[in-house]
Parts: sequence; C-alpha cells; structure tokens
Amino acid sequence: MSTNATPNTSNATEPIRVGLLGAGTVGSQTARLLVEQQQELAKRIGRPIVLSGVACLDPDEVDFPWIDKALLTNDTASVVDGADIVVELIGGTGVARTFVRQALENGSSVVTANKALLAKYGPELYELAEQHHADIYFEAAVGGAIPIVRPLRESLVGDQVESMLGIVNGTTNYILDEMTTKGLDFDDVLKKAQELGYAEADPTGDIEGYDAANKAAIMATLGFHTNLTIDDVSVEGITKITADDIAAATAEGHVVKLLAVVENGEAGVSARVYPALINKDHPLASVHGSFNAVFLKAKYADDLMFYGRGAGGAPTASAVVGDIVTVARHIAAGTTGPSITMYNDLPKAPLSASKAAFAVNFRVHDTPGTLAQVARKFGDHGVSINGVNQDLKPTKTDPGYDGEIQQFRIVTHPTDELTLRETISDVCTLDCVVGEPSVLRVLD
Amino acid sequence: MSTNATPNTSNATEPIRVGLLGAGTVGSQTARLLVEQQQELAKRIGRPIVLSGVACLDPDEVDFPWIDKALLTNDTASVVDGADIVVELIGGTGVARTFVRQALENGSSVVTANKALLAKYGPELYELAEQHHADIYFEAAVGGAIPIVRPLRESLVGDQVESMLGIVNGTTNYILDEMTTKGLDFDDVLKKAQELGYAEADPTGDIEGYDAANKAAIMATLGFHTNLTIDDVSVEGITKITADDIAAATAEGHVVKLLAVVENGEAGVSARVYPALINKDHPLASVHGSFNAVFLKAKYADDLMFYGRGAGGAPTASAVVGDIVTVARHIAAGTTGPSITMYNDLPKAPLSASKAAFAVNFRVHDTPGTLAQVARKFGDHGVSINGVNQDLKPTKTDPGYDGEIQQFRIVTHPTDELTLRETISDVCTLDCVVGEPSVLRVLD
Repeated sequence: MSTNATPNTSNATEPIRVGLLGAGTVGSQTARLLVEQQQELAKRIGRPIVLSGVACLDPDEVDFPWIDKALLTNDTASVVDGADIVVELIGGTGVARTFVRQALENGSSVVTANKALLAKYGPELYELAEQHHADIYFEAAVGGAIPIVRPLRESLVGDQVESMLGIVNGTTNYILDEMTTKGLDFDDVLKKAQELGYAEADPTGDIEGYDAANKAAIMATLGFHTNLTIDDVSVEGITKITADDIAAATAEGHVVKLLAVVENGEAGVSARVYPALINKDHPLASVHGSFNAVFLKAKYADDLMFYGRGAGGAPTASAVVGDIVTVARHIAAGTTGPSITMYNDLPKAPLSASKAAFAVNFRVHDTPGTLAQVARKFGDHGVSINGVNQDLKPTKTDPGYDGEIQQFRIVTHPTDELTLRETISDVCTLDCVVGEPSVLRVLD
Repeated sequence: MSTNATPNTSNATEPIRVGLLGAGTVGSQTARLLVEQQQELAKRIGRPIVLSGVACLDPDEVDFPWIDKALLTNDTASVVDGADIVVELIGGTGVARTFVRQALENGSSVVTANKALLAKYGPELYELAEQHHADIYFEAAVGGAIPIVRPLRESLVGDQVESMLGIVNGTTNYILDEMTTKGLDFDDVLKKAQELGYAEADPTGDIEGYDAANKAAIMATLGFHTNLTIDDVSVEGITKITADDIAAATAEGHVVKLLAVVENGEAGVSARVYPALINKDHPLASVHGSFNAVFLKAKYADDLMFYGRGAGGAPTASAVVGDIVTVARHIAAGTTGPSITMYNDLPKAPLSASKAAFAVNFRVHDTPGTLAQVARKFGDHGVSINGVNQDLKPTKTDPGYDGEIQQFRIVTHPTDELTLRETISDVCTLDCVVGEPSVLRVLD
C-alpha cells in the first residue's frame, strides 16, 4: 500500500473516471450498473464516479440505452489514458496485457475479470501495480459474482489456507449435471449445451479444464502467498467421462464434479484440475448447473464454503463494480489496497506426492479369470484394491466390438498417480481388456 | 477513509501494538494466532506486529504458554492507551462500550467480535471511528469465521442487497438438528446440550433468538446502508417448537431452522428472527450443528451463500486476526478502511407488510365437524388455506387432557402475521381446540 499520486486525489467533488475496455456481455452490464447506480455509488465512495470511455471493436455495432454513444471508440489506448480506473474486459493474454500494463504504468488502477491474463502474467502485473502505486483488483476472475478473491486477500490473512476445492466452471458443471440426471453421454450433452448457448462453439477451454486451471493458479497464488502460474497447474478435462462412469458413481452414492484443487502440503504446493467423485453429502455435491462454489480449509477457520453464480453478465458485473467502488474509495482516500503478497517461495509438489484413491472402469471380454488377471497386475505394481464392482451394466458398447462386453470397476486405496498410470498401462496389455479404461479420483 | 495521524504511521520497522481486552476462549486463541504467526503476519502487513497487553479480570488465573505473563493486567484502560489496535473481546454493552469509545477517541483502531455492542451502539461507534480517523472492524461478530461482514462492506458495494437469510446461531441449530434426527422434544435436547457444553447454563440469549437478532441488526445495517439497531428487530425463539412440529415438517419435506431474516422491500426494511420451515433442498437446509451460513440475494449478483464455523475459539480468532491484519495494513499505509455508510434513511416496514405462508399445528378433541369449525374461522378472517394434514399422530399428549387428542396442521397461503395471530386467537375460543397451537413460517 502506498500513496497514490494521481492528480484526481485532491479534489473531493471531481468525478473518478472509469474507462471500460470491452462492451460485450459483462462490459455492457458493468456500464449499466455504473450508470443506473450513479447516485448510490457516489454516496458509497464519497466522490462521484463517471464512465469516461468505452473501447470496443466497432462502435457502430454497440447499442445500449445506458451507454452514451459519444463514449464509444475503437481507440483503446485513449480510453486507457483518459481513466483513473481501467476496467479490462477484453479477455485473453494478448492486447489485454498491453493495455493493463499501460494503465498501471500510467499509475491508473485496474479492475479485470481476465483469469487467463492473471494466471499467466499475474505476478508480473501485481509487481507492476505495486511499483506504480496502483491497485489491481479481480474479484470476477474466479467464481463470477462470488466473493472469493477478497476473502483470500483480506479476510483470511490472519490464517493459513491449507486447501481449496472449487467448482469454478459452469459449463462443465452443467454438462456433468445433465449427464447425471438424464443418463446421457458426454457428446450428446455437449451438443445440446452448445445449441442452448451454455457451451461455446469452441468449448475446448471449458471442457478440457483450462478455464478452471486458470482459476486454480490464481487461487493458489492468493491462498498460499506464493508465485504460481498456469504452467504449474496439471489439467484433466471431462471429455473422457462416460455415461457408465456417471451411472457407477450414482450407484455408489457419489457425484462426478470437475474440481480445481489447490493444496499446500508437506511436499509443497500443488494446483490441479481433474474430474473427481465426491460423496453426495459433500457441500459441493449440491452445486448445480452454472453455479460455482469454493470449499476451503484453513488451519484455524476450518471449513468454509462460498457459493454463487459463476458467470452471466449481471452477476459478473456485480463483482466488477464492487471492485471499481473499492478502488475508487482508495483513490478518494489517496491510498491503495493491500499488495498481493508472494513472499513464500514454496516448492511445487511433484506429481508422485499427490496420493488419492482412484476409481477405474475397465471394459472387458467376460471370460473366466479376467478379474484375477487384472487384480494381479495391480498387486504387481503395489497398488492396493479397496473394492471391486462387477454389477455394472455397460450403457454403451464399444463400436469396435460386436460381442458382449462386461464392465468392472476397481476402487483403489490411496496411491500416487504415476504408479496408477503405469498399472493401468500394464493392465491394458491384457487381451481381455477392451479399449481405454476411465479413471476418476475419489475424494471422501 | 482518511489519513490516520498516529505517530506509529511513520516508522516502517516499529511494531504495531495490539492490545487484547479479554483472555477467554476467543481472546486466548487470538493471542496464539498472533504469536505463532508473528513472522508470517509481519510479511503480510509489511510491518512487525506485537501483543502489547492483555487485559483480564484476574491475571493470576490466566495461563497460556504463548502469552507472556508480563503482558497480563486487570488495568484495562492502560491496555487501551498502550495499543495501536484495541481488540475488544469482553462482550456485552457495558464496559465494552466504554473501552471501545476510549480507544476510538484515542485515534486507535478497534477490532471486536461483540455483536450485542454493535447491534445496540453500532451507528454511534461507526461515527466515532470516522470522526477520529480510526477503523472499527468486526468480522467475527456475525457468523464466526465466515467472511460475511467484509463481503457486505466491500464486495457487494457495487450491487443492491435485497435480502439475507442466515443461520447465525449454532446452539439453536444444534438443538433443532438433534430434535430432527432423534425425535426428541425441545427441553430434553436443551438439557443434553447444556451437559455437553453446547448450550450455556443460561441459554436465554440463544434459544430466545436474541443472539441471532443482534446479528440481524448488523447484517441489515451493512447490507442496506441504513441505521438499524437491535430495537428494530422482531424476535421469536425456538422454545415453543415441539417434536410434533419437527415430525410434521419432516413428513412434508421441510426442515425447521431458526433464521435471521433481513429484507429491503417496498414497504421498507425489516429485520426479524424466527423459526421457519424451509424446503429440504434449500442450501440452508444442509447447514448442520454449529455451522452457520448466510444466504443472500442481491439485485445483480443474484444468490450467494457463505458457510463455515459460526463459533469456537480458533475459528472466531481467525476472523479477529484477519481484521487485525487488515487494520494493521491500514496503519502501515497511514489510512483507514471504508466507513460504514448509513446514507439511506430507509423506513422500517410495519409488521403487517410482512406476508408469509404459515403452518399451524392445532391439537383438538376429535369430534365430528372440528375441521369445518376451524376452517370457517380462517375464512371469517380472510386467511386462505393452502392445505390441511390430518394424518399426523401426536408424539406427546397434553398433560391437562386424559383422552385421545388428534392433531391437524393447516398451511395457509401468504398472509400477514397480525391477521394470522387474530385468526388463531379466535380459533382458540373453540371448545374442540386443546392448548396453544404452534406456528411456523413456511419459506419456499
């Protein structure tokens, strides 16, 4: 924190200027909240606040009754230079980075919802902000409307965060929900989700887990006060999950969720995204559709959960405008918020340090001795089996196989992932095994 | 916000002094977190932080390995005067108020967990803090470890909070849980809770809803930016709830929870505490035991929920120390946090403006025409009946009645509480009605 030297600080009646970069779903709603609540926000800040410019690709195409046409421009740099607070809603790690850097170098503060930018260049930008006595706030980058960034930066600074489990991607949560309630396969649900606009035309970022991985990097950096970027996150998406997996999970009292998991353990910090089986009574199990939630464990506070809308124009804009007001209050007071502290240079935990129970669904030719052969391979690799379920009826047969295929599911005791992967490769050399098995972690 | 003129601001290596008032469960844990995490907290603040004094009734009786005996004193005023941050954990509205005022008048900042003090004198203290350029922070006063005060003060300042439903008292939540899972009556569970230390020897503040009412007043003031005190909160406790009520609720797919409900509606703001029936699928329904949760609806963010431990030494201390670090950062930066804005002078909604569906459990002599007589009374008062359940077997008979008593339960369409109370008084004049019926709101 330090004194902000912008000329605007001095005058209590001079409006604080907000420059908006991007006028899409979130940008247009952000403008609406600022304009509709102008009087109210001025009272909360103690200074008037105005929209000073809106940068967009084609000003002729942007038409919202609450945005003064004269504010629209495709000259983004001019909007940056004319603002006390720059709100970056462009997305991506290209020009967004350029303009955020430009704003901070000007000594202007930045509010952004750009998780990809922060997951890749966060530490660089946090330092730049501190150097130029500017704020960088980004509540909307993780969990949409849910206050999670601020609790991590401020509420939990008297504690030690140990782990977080987050459902932080609404598209995948919706898909898994639909697979669960309707018994459908992944591809069919994805297609429907695209038709309904719940999934993008190119859904890769969501379904392969990259979006969640960006959020995991940000959560770990804030929670553990250490420098962690997207490159440190291991990622598995949900594209390999079958209707059979879901049916088996349901039968066992589990639900499948795509989780962002960050942990600070003895072996170091880790940030991972993977689909997992969680008990149907876990608080995260009842987070449905486009809702997000983060379940957090801290040394003293113990369990906490934060729940709300993870996406959508108005909910995301609520978080963005909350940040704008916070930053505006700092400008009015001639100060900045707390720096993002990364004083911990914590080691990254190796993959082998991450032990979990796994549920592996094999499809096999049903010949005598199959289970014994498979079980022996697990034993050879020192992976202990906790349970076997042979009662699962496949809901779909392998296209390459015209006979009857049986399914069985092995749940292991906690083992490290590398050993498990080696075991599975070895099992797959058996003649009786058909195709690739599906693998899900079991979190209980 | 404004510049803090304490002499300590200037020197970046001089420790920030924390004076603790109270060394009970939360006080001793607060001291532990400060001492155990001294190095870590200094990095997060950018300045060292030290415990400068601990005020307690009898220094000879306080013995914790992490509290230097030399810091203990029964001279509370000296601890206040020797601190940059005064942490008030005395409780109540007597001397606590005196010392908090003394601290603020000194220009020192205050961290407190004292909900009764804030619910009664909050507005006076917030103004005093602003006047003396000091902070007053109180995350632990509502929902223990759960970040809810800070989200209201900061995260949601770009939005309009419309309502909050909170389970904010662990003792009553535990009692209702036990009644539900074990089918026991209130008195029996209370006695057991007292034996186990989950309820106090004098449980009035919890079971009559006053503790929750204090929290409701604080939530409403912060959420609606208006001046609302404990005197504005209407309170109903859980002492009249019977095993029959719980059994009927369970049969209907409901759970009974004691809720703090604050709303900003067309008729004005209201803050109320009452036991209510909520659907078993509502996110609050699965909040068990000593856990707390606040479910919040905002105009733009939509639904949010915050969940965690509502009490206990370490969880509450986590919230207290989070506030201490925040305030210490402000001192290090020579500033203060945002003022508690109460610019809205919102009208208080009259009781008649609060409409709800009610479930009324009557016990009656089972004679022909009973239901018709009762239903006619409801019709006479213009209260519309949504459903009647006559299949409920009483689990307990009235001590004053030696024959067979039947029970029936009427669920109304939304009606105002005054009309409902008049209707019930009228029904109770009927010969067939035995004793007082129980009345629960239905929130769906």
